[in-house]
Amino acid sequence: MKLQSFSEFPFAEGGICAAKGFKANGVCCGLKHQALPSDGISEQNLAANGVEPEGSEIDIALPDETKQKNDLAMIVSDTECAAAAVYTSNKVKGAPLLVTKQHLKNGRAKAVIVNSVNANTCNADGMEKAAAMCELTAKALGIEADDVVVASTGVIGQPLPIEPIAEGIPKLVKGLSYTGNLEAVHAIMTTDTREKEVAVSFSVDGKTCHLGGMLKGSGMICPNMATTLTFITTDAAVSPETLQMALSDVVRVTLNRVSVDGDMSTNDMVLVLANGMAGNEEIRRDSTDYRTLRDALYVVMLNLARMCAADGEGATKLIECVVSGADNEAVAAAVGKSVIMSNLFKAAIFGEDANWGRIACAIGYADADVDVTRIDVDLASANGRIHVAEQGFGVPFSEEEAKTVLSADEIQVLIALNSGNASACTWGCDLTYEYVRINGDYRS
Amino acid sequence: MKLQSFSEFPFAEGGICAAKGFKANGVCCGLKHQALPSDGISEQNLAANGVEPEGSEIDIALPDETKQKNDLAMIVSDTECAAAAVYTSNKVKGAPLLVTKQHLKNGRAKAVIVNSVNANTCNADGMEKAAAMCELTAKALGIEADDVVVASTGVIGQPLPIEPIAEGIPKLVKGLSYTGNLEAVHAIMTTDTREKEVAVSFSVDGKTCHLGGMLKGSGMICPNMATTLTFITTDAAVSPETLQMALSDVVRVTLNRVSVDGDMSTNDMVLVLANGMAGNEEIRRDSTDYRTLRDALYVVMLNLARMCAADGEGATKLIECVVSGADNEAVAAAVGKSVIMSNLFKAAIFGEDANWGRIACAIGYADADVDVTRIDVDLASANGRIHVAEQGFGVPFSEEEAKTVLSADEIQVLIALNSGNASACTWGCDLTYEYVRINGDYRS
Repeated sequence: MKLQSFSEFPFAEGGICAAKGFKANGVCCGLKHQALPSDGISEQNLAANGVEPEGSEIDIALPDETKQKNDLAMIVSDTECAAAAVYTSNKVKGAPLLVTKQHLKNGRAKAVIVNSVNANTCNADGMEKAAAMCELTAKALGIEADDVVVASTGVIGQPLPIEPIAEGIPKLVKGLSYTGNLEAVHAIMTTDTREKEVAVSFSVDGKTCHLGGMLKGSGMICPNMATTLTFITTDAAVSPETLQMALSDVVRVTLNRVSVDGDMSTNDMVLVLANGMAGNEEIRRDSTDYRTLRDALYVVMLNLARMCAADGEGATKLIECVVSGADNEAVAAAVGKSVIMSNLFKAAIFGEDANWGRIACAIGYADADVDVTRIDVDLASANGRIHVAEQGFGVPFSEEEAKTVLSADEIQVLIALNSGNASACTWGCDLTYEYVRINGDYRS
Repeated sequence: MKLQSFSEFPFAEGGICAAKGFKANGVCCGLKHQALPSDGISEQNLAANGVEPEGSEIDIALPDETKQKNDLAMIVSDTECAAAAVYTSNKVKGAPLLVTKQHLKNGRAKAVIVNSVNANTCNADGMEKAAAMCELTAKALGIEADDVVVASTGVIGQPLPIEPIAEGIPKLVKGLSYTGNLEAVHAIMTTDTREKEVAVSFSVDGKTCHLGGMLKGSGMICPNMATTLTFITTDAAVSPETLQMALSDVVRVTLNRVSVDGDMSTNDMVLVLANGMAGNEEIRRDSTDYRTLRDALYVVMLNLARMCAADGEGATKLIECVVSGADNEAVAAAVGKSVIMSNLFKAAIFGEDANWGRIACAIGYADADVDVTRIDVDLASANGRIHVAEQGFGVPFSEEEAKTVLSADEIQVLIALNSGNASACTWGCDLTYEYVRINGDYRS
């Protein structure tokens, strides 16, 4: 996936460690899925679907290394941070999320502890375990438990064993480093196939600041409040309220516009920590520098959002849907989401089939007031652009050209509603055999 | 799939021809998908997803006969009928649907002409072609064009060639018969793998009446107003208003509770024709027999809805979700729909994996006010029943037993919200490799 760059915000190395004063680490503490008596997906079912369960084709998706991959990560700032977060709006909320919400009431935090494999959600002892993770972290770092943010991701509804985590935390602390970002990224990955991190530098108040983030999330991804686990750090000085304002503003046009499968996670959270070590004057709502901070956050979260969609479970293609000419932004976003969430359209993109009727269909059932007789549709990619519909009706196009356009790994769907001046961008991915395979035996 | 039977409504043979005075037929007039330069889904893409595009596994899904299958059907009543219909609420509406709406304004119809392969939707000449289908039918039958209902299903956005239809209609008329129901069923099938028809008999006013229907629909199925093309006939005498009332009431708890893929079709329509040839006194809103008619319609539409879900594109399992203890029916239906529409849960059912956390997740993001801390969840089938969650938390269960329960081809998800007394039933199916394969190259 190509990063989208903006000249005032050059990319920096180091992800969550790009900002001054942030250490990170990740270890494998040995969390495991609950064992199943047999291998998740049954061989009969695979065979019934015309797919042989044996052979290298089926085995390649989860490389062996994932069985030993990091599952516990820590981020620590040298100084106390202003903290802001947004959470999933799923009514079923993971226990870690509830504990974190409590700890962030004062807008301050210093460390993050996060595990993958097990979501610690829908468990009777979930709150207790999430609190224990904070206490163990606080003790190991010599800080207060309510300065610790906790997050978990993985299978829902299976008790989280605290022992491996208790044993892992001292190892995590011992290995903390200012270049530990990738170790941490690996620890939060679940079905993710690629490391997702990005950082930028920018200038505020004559000081050079950095802002970087990492994201996990491949399945159970649907826009609302926030999607996936995302951790962002910056050395800019920002008040907690200002940080929250910037985050809420940016999440709306980035992660909330992503869908992999329409399933909104129970454990989603985006956290931003700002430790002020760049030495700038604290940015407040009315600072002239607010816009710069917000834009830096936008560049990082935009790229994380695109990475998230491009690495959607089983995805072979990133779909970017640009809806323009809408009466307002909500209409544009609703139309775009409807298109990127259509299973039929997603499967057609996997098949590189310019079946634009499925786009028309998805626009037609979008939760938005749209005059479908005014719509123009184009499909585009690095390989070219084809015009497929005008004023709601199909227009002739070369199927060969369409095939060429759709053979790229980033596809743009351009929808002009020809009504107003608002627009929105949404991101999704194709629906593939691999999505079904991954989710047919996720727990095993 | 097992039919659900009710003692007062014994099943009858003949589908749409079970009712007295209804003839039907289906022919292959030679409608074709627009040719693609290559075979829809690319071999690279299949290989990238670990699936070999060659070999019998991939080819079995569409038997050779489908290439020569019927694509044009007609239903004709010996006498004029009261007619009622419900239509998709997709804002993009197929031209045939708009023409039909016009023709049914007087609540009367005598014949139906319907084609598969091409939806005649989003085409500049769509209205013209749909009207022509009615005129050709009317001419061949010696009736008025506005007594003809027209429907089309298939690819959206490709001009419908009228010539094959014009040539097919005389053949259709010539072969009309009181036992032509299966020929008609075959003509409306698209990606359907099974014939979907059912009929019942019942007694009204001392007369034996029949009510039977056929349904097509396998993909682009999502509950709203109506789903799929469904044609129902009865020889009971019913006023058009009463027929409409019964249909609107029943569709709400049957077809509107089905989802295969969340994609609401542009061409959905349910039509009921009542020709009164059973000789009963005309049933009106306030008749004591209204309930009997409504129940007969329910039995037929319930079974068609279940058949539709069970034969969802690529499906290996029917999922029936029963939500009880809701504050009202809307809450129960919203929770049920959310669960049967979850891609993650559908993939887990394909994998026979009791990953009930995905049910909790889908309940949590349902568009309904639910106290998630009160929910109990069971999974059941002909093979047994397991209790997986209580008061919102997971409970231990035998994975082996779960596997046995989920190995059946009809799975029940039983959700108790433990709040009120309302309940609702929804139907869906698993998400499989085959769904992706079918929709990766649907147009080719």
